[in-house]
Amino acid sequence: QTPTSAAAKPSRLGLCAACHGDTGMAVMPGAPNLAGQRLDYLRQALKDYRDGRRDVPVMRAALGPLSDAELDALARWYSAQTLTPAGQP
Amino acid sequence: QTPTSAAAKPSRLGLCAACHGDTGMAVMPGAPNLAGQRLDYLRQALKDYRDGRRDVPVMRAALGPLSDAELDALARWYSAQTLTPAGQP
Repeated sequence: QTPTSAAAKPSRLGLCAACHGDTGMAVMPGAPNLAGQRLDYLRQALKDYRDGRRDVPVMRAALGPLSDAELDALARWYSAQTLTPAGQP
Repeated sequence: QTPTSAAAKPSRLGLCAACHGDTGMAVMPGAPNLAGQRLDYLRQALKDYRDGRRDVPVMRAALGPLSDAELDALARWYSAQTLTPAGQP
């Protein structure tokens, strides 16, 4: 699947993509699709995970080392992708 | 916007729709789109909100009175909707 945004891939995308896919179509059971999600929601969710307000150990571990700028790049990337019906289980 | 599922609207949809829209296109800042989200993720999220594992007071208040069957109907409804680019802020 080709990303629908012309933006460069965030440098930190790899770890996210293992569950949420490069383009935000989840590839793991239990992981949500992120493609086309609202930017404001994604930004807040990423900070909440990183800082432990939203207590999901795997997400805290993945995001713990990331800066605000890196979180912002990830939120922008996924928000800019297009959710496709093929992503439905 | 016309719902994309032929399923009947869940009886409890009204309160959800105030923020997430009838078809899962969020209408309030800070609320996520739900259209086309994975069914397994929505099911778990609704239970986690209702039972307090995911601690968001407004969601706990909204879902507290709902049965498992009612949560399931809401998860199915929103998962069956189609996310449209118009839903992007």
